[in-house]
This record gives sequence, structure tokens and C-alpha cells, in this order.
Amino acid sequence: MKIRAAVAWEAGQPLSIETLDIQGPKAGEVMIKMVATGVCHTDAFTLSGADPEGIFPSVLGHEGGAIVVEIGAGVTSVAVDDHVIPLYTPECGECNFCTSGKTNLCQAIRATQGQGLMPDGTSRLSFNGQTIYHYMGTSTFAEYAVVPEIALAKINRHAPLDKVCLLGCGITTGVGAVLNTAKVEAGSTVAVFGLGGIGCGVIQGAVMAGASRIIGVDINPDKFEFAKQMGATEFVNPKDHELPIQDVLIDLTDGGVDYSFECVGNVELMRSALECCHKGWGESVIIGVAGAGQEIATRPFQLVTGRVWRGSAFGGVKGRSQLPGMVDQYMAGELKVDEFVSHTMPLDKINEAFDLMHAGNGIRSVITFD
Amino acid sequence: MKIRAAVAWEAGQPLSIETLDIQGPKAGEVMIKMVATGVCHTDAFTLSGADPEGIFPSVLGHEGGAIVVEIGAGVTSVAVDDHVIPLYTPECGECNFCTSGKTNLCQAIRATQGQGLMPDGTSRLSFNGQTIYHYMGTSTFAEYAVVPEIALAKINRHAPLDKVCLLGCGITTGVGAVLNTAKVEAGSTVAVFGLGGIGCGVIQGAVMAGASRIIGVDINPDKFEFAKQMGATEFVNPKDHELPIQDVLIDLTDGGVDYSFECVGNVELMRSALECCHKGWGESVIIGVAGAGQEIATRPFQLVTGRVWRGSAFGGVKGRSQLPGMVDQYMAGELKVDEFVSHTMPLDKINEAFDLMHAGNGIRSVITFD
Repeated sequence: MKIRAAVAWEAGQPLSIETLDIQGPKAGEVMIKMVATGVCHTDAFTLSGADPEGIFPSVLGHEGGAIVVEIGAGVTSVAVDDHVIPLYTPECGECNFCTSGKTNLCQAIRATQGQGLMPDGTSRLSFNGQTIYHYMGTSTFAEYAVVPEIALAKINRHAPLDKVCLLGCGITTGVGAVLNTAKVEAGSTVAVFGLGGIGCGVIQGAVMAGASRIIGVDINPDKFEFAKQMGATEFVNPKDHELPIQDVLIDLTDGGVDYSFECVGNVELMRSALECCHKGWGESVIIGVAGAGQEIATRPFQLVTGRVWRGSAFGGVKGRSQLPGMVDQYMAGELKVDEFVSHTMPLDKINEAFDLMHAGNGIRSVITFD
Repeated sequence: MKIRAAVAWEAGQPLSIETLDIQGPKAGEVMIKMVATGVCHTDAFTLSGADPEGIFPSVLGHEGGAIVVEIGAGVTSVAVDDHVIPLYTPECGECNFCTSGKTNLCQAIRATQGQGLMPDGTSRLSFNGQTIYHYMGTSTFAEYAVVPEIALAKINRHAPLDKVCLLGCGITTGVGAVLNTAKVEAGSTVAVFGLGGIGCGVIQGAVMAGASRIIGVDINPDKFEFAKQMGATEFVNPKDHELPIQDVLIDLTDGGVDYSFECVGNVELMRSALECCHKGWGESVIIGVAGAGQEIATRPFQLVTGRVWRGSAFGGVKGRSQLPGMVDQYMAGELKVDEFVSHTMPLDKINEAFDLMHAGNGIRSVITFD
């Protein structure tokens, strides 16, 4: 079958809209028709060439909302016409990660997914016979995609896919990091470094957890207004201060915050986020993805005096088990998603979505397919 | 009153036995007669000059077993003749750290303790009129000491002070790091880096927690025998392997350990201890104290993929609340302490205790006072 897709031919170049061939689903796989997809910083990170795992040529995209159009042999958990969100963190339910009770990082298809391939070691995408690679097991910048059954969350069919597609990454990652990874308690003070889609997801999570103070940190004050709408109670722009930002926050909170979240991917900021935590109990969660080879550092005394350094991927959320419930929370008005969509455009304009993101204009662009 | 004490006149020099003047206890203070004291690596660390907080001249020592001989005004929780263990981590029960329910790091007297002074900002020790500083609020390398009331744990008077003095630091720090900080679950795999007093305390804690595998790591194979007695199930000497030690441990455990503990104070080893942890859930606890200015580093990916980096001080144990119970555990045969005493000697021989420690000979020397 022929489909239109935005192809990343090589690092550092704009995406190119091409007509690709897509093969039908093999055993354990599902073909989905994309209704909408968000454009996330991680797509831009890979496109930039900074991602050590980046593979080209490929179809990027991982915040999709879609409908099942065909199932492969043995597929039982989804059926044609089901509404789904593809999962870059799958959930097989059987590997020792899934059964550990301690992590959402299912490893069942990790090796092939990292190579841009389906679990059988091949790609379903090609261009005039040339292999085009999958990306994060999702490749949502295309009219259709083939994904493993274990990488699909079946959701409420009444949910608008051009909104809840954002639960495929950013919002879920932020909310989940607060509720699942840090387990923030009511009354806690929280600092959020970086007020993009993930940071504003963290703010929402902190509101849901009952945090008493939610301090947004960003060097772009244009971000403050939306963050305030989401529930941030105060803001700090590091550019307004001569002191290191961690010292500013420690002063502001009489000793440091109970929890901090790094949502940028800057290793220096990760250090600041740890060191602004309160002695004795402050916990810092790294969400942002740093460039290849970069390292975090601090004095071990920071940890010995009671701070904890964690990380979070996809908010610790088990996609198949938990994402449908988050969609229901959105439908019940308990989780804000619509507000995150700042721009909507067709696939042809996808490079504009990247430009808007780089310019810090708006929170999320959503690509819709006809 | 005149007392004999081992004085650290300056960094890098042996201790010198001197006759000092000691003032009686002021309000909220207690004078204790030392019965025994352990000699710990932290004393050697400070004496070496590597401790940025080291102050000279001072009386070192912080693993004491003692008897109350005089109480200052307002002291109500201990009385003359009570048996006590002095606490370098006090417990006031009232500061926001003590009441947080999250940490043992009472800050009530932190500032003055760090300056080698009693809470009123003065010292009780002098030599021919020259101020001699306190150390860690304990200064146990002396026949008598004056300590704040909140820095004394009152213990079972039948416990032999020349043994349970070791619960004033090393053993408690190791056991507590497992039970209080990491909260190791039954069936877990554990790696212990450094098999001195603290490392062997960690091993005991891991046994108490029901760990399934307890892997000791040390470059001195002489340490393996005692560690095995304490309950370690296997050993790795990094010198026997060309691969980095974290890779050796990951291979040995099919993906990494559930918990690791760094008990040396080496920042490279702290990194290895983190990175040998299992993806998705492995937690590493830093116990060792690194030299001034040294930093730990890793790729943030290590945390984003589920590892947790923590630290522990005095094993997370609240001294006044919890240490008496640990002494009772020892008396009931549930906690090994006697085995840690490898040498016993009088105060005059204290420099030999440091020599034995530097040579890696035995676990702990205990100084006894007549």
C-alpha cells in the first residue's frame, strides 16, 4: 500500500514529504491509520543528529492518535476500528521488567526497536525499494503505521484523537513523573525546570498531587503565562539572578524544594535541579534527554546528606494498563489536554511545526491527517 | 578537671597523648566517662587533612561507649551512671528535620558542631589555656567528654561498652543503610563495595533483610574471610578482571544487582556502584565519604532508565530513638558486634590502631580506658 509520510533522510535536514510503500502487519503486529500526531522535542532531538540512537532514513513521530485498520495473525487485544495510542514504551506483561512491579520499561522488543525495526528484524516501510526505518516503534509522521500489538493502548473511542494523541508522550511523561516516579505528597514544594509540554505536564501532576508551591523555572518568560494556567504558583527566570539558580531556589523556599523535575535535557540544569532540593529528603527527577556522551555531576555530599537522584521515562506509566485510564481522566475533566494544543496543521506543514517549537512559540503543534 | 586525651595537633601528624583541662557541663550538656572507643576511617580521613571540615587542634573519635558522670542544668533524659553512646548525629526531636519523618539528619546543633564547638559556641577542652576543639560533637579519644544531651543515646546497662561502642558509627551505618535507606527486600541481590567495618555492617543488614545474593567487592582478598563470616555469599576482586567492575557484576547477575552500597569514599567506585545496578529498578547508596572537592558523575541515561542514586549518613538511624533497640538486638544475639573487634589496646597505643587500619589489618581496633 502507498502512504504519504514525512521522511527524515538525514540528520540536520528538514523532513521531506514522500510516498512510501508500507507492508501489512505480520504476526503480532497491527496496522493503524493515523488521525493525528503531536510534534515533540524528542523528534527534533533525533533529527538534529544529537541522539546517539538516531537512525536514518526514517519516519519520526511518537505522539499518535490512530484507528486500527488491520491486525496480523495472533492479535487478540485490539480489533479493527479500535481507537489506539501507539506506545514507544510497550507493555508485554511477561518480561521480568513488566512483572517486577517496579518499572514500566518493558524490554520485550527493545533491541529491534532501537534498530528502527519491527520485532522480526525487518522494516515495513520502504521508498522505491530502499528500506526506511521505524522510529521508537511508532513512526507517527505518516498516514499509516505498523506497530507491535504490545505497543498499542486501546482507549475510549469517544476521546478526540487530535487531542489525546498528546498523551502518547509529553503530558503523560510529566504527570506520571510526579505521580508514579516521585510520588509527590500533598503539601510538597515543587520546582519545574523547563516549561514546555513536559514541564507543564509536571505542573499538572503537581496540582493533582496537592503540592503547596509549584515553582516554574525557564529562561523564556513567554512560557510563564501558560504554566500559570496549568497551576504553577510562581516563577523564576535564571537570567534575572546573578546567583546560581539552585541558590535562588534554596533562598526562596527556606532550604530547598521537596521535589524538582528537569524537563530540558541540559546536564548543568540537572545538577541545579538536584542541588536545589532540600537537605534530608529532597528528590530530583531527570526527565529531559541529554545529548550523546554528556554527563551529570555533583559532590557525593549532596546525596549523603539525604537528596535522591532519579530519572523517569514515559512518566513511569505502563501504557496498556494505565494510559486508557488517563484518557478517561481527560474525558472526565480531571486532566487538561486541549490547552496544550497551540497549533494544528496538515502533514505538509510539518516543518513549520518544528520551526515553531525551536522558536519556543506555543506548547505543542498537532498534525492532523485527512 | 585534668584528663588524658589523644590530641590531633595538625593534619598529617600522629596523635599525641596530652593532659587537657575539661570544663564541666553547661546547661543542656552532659559529662561522660569514656569506657571504650572504636577507631574509624573517618577519624583517619580527618587526620589526613582531606576532610574540608577538619579543625585542629582537636580531640578526634566518634565511636564511644561511656557512662554519665555529671549533668548540666535542665538535663532530664539521662542521669548519672546511665550507660550511653554519644551521637555525632544528634536527635533533638523538635527541628523540622527530626519532625519530617523523612530523615535522621537533625540540624539543631549542626553549625556549632561543624566548628568544633558546643552549642553555646565555646569549647570545654583546653591545653595550658589554648582552646582544643571538639570533633563531631563526640571527641571520644579522651578519658572524659562533654556532649550535648541531645547527642546521647541511653542504652541497656548490661551491654559491654567495649563492644557496643562500635554501634556509635560503623556497624550501625552499614546495617541502617540497608534497612532504613535502601529498604532492601527479601530475595534481593546486593553488591557491597569495600569490606571494612561499614561494608561488613552492610552485609549484616543484607542478611537481616533476607537478600538472596550478597556480593562483596574489594581489592584486598584478605577481607573476604571475615565478610563471608558476616554473610557475604560471593566475592569479586576488581584486580582479577580486565573489564570494568560494573560490567563484571552485570554479567554475574544477569543484568545487574537490585541494590549496591559504596563503603569506601572513592568517587569512581561510586559510579561503578550505580552502574552495576539493574536497569529499571536498581538503587545505589553512597555511604563512603569522598575527599574535598571530588565529584561523582554518570550519564543521565543511567537514571532515566530507572536506576536511583542515594546516600546515607549514620544509616538513616535516629540515634536516641533507634540505637537503644539495636543494642538490645545485639544483646539478643540478633546483631553481631563482638566479631568486629579485631584489636584492643589502651589510649597510649592509639597510633598503632591507625597503623593497623591503614595496613588493612583487621576490622576495628577498640581503645579501652582504665
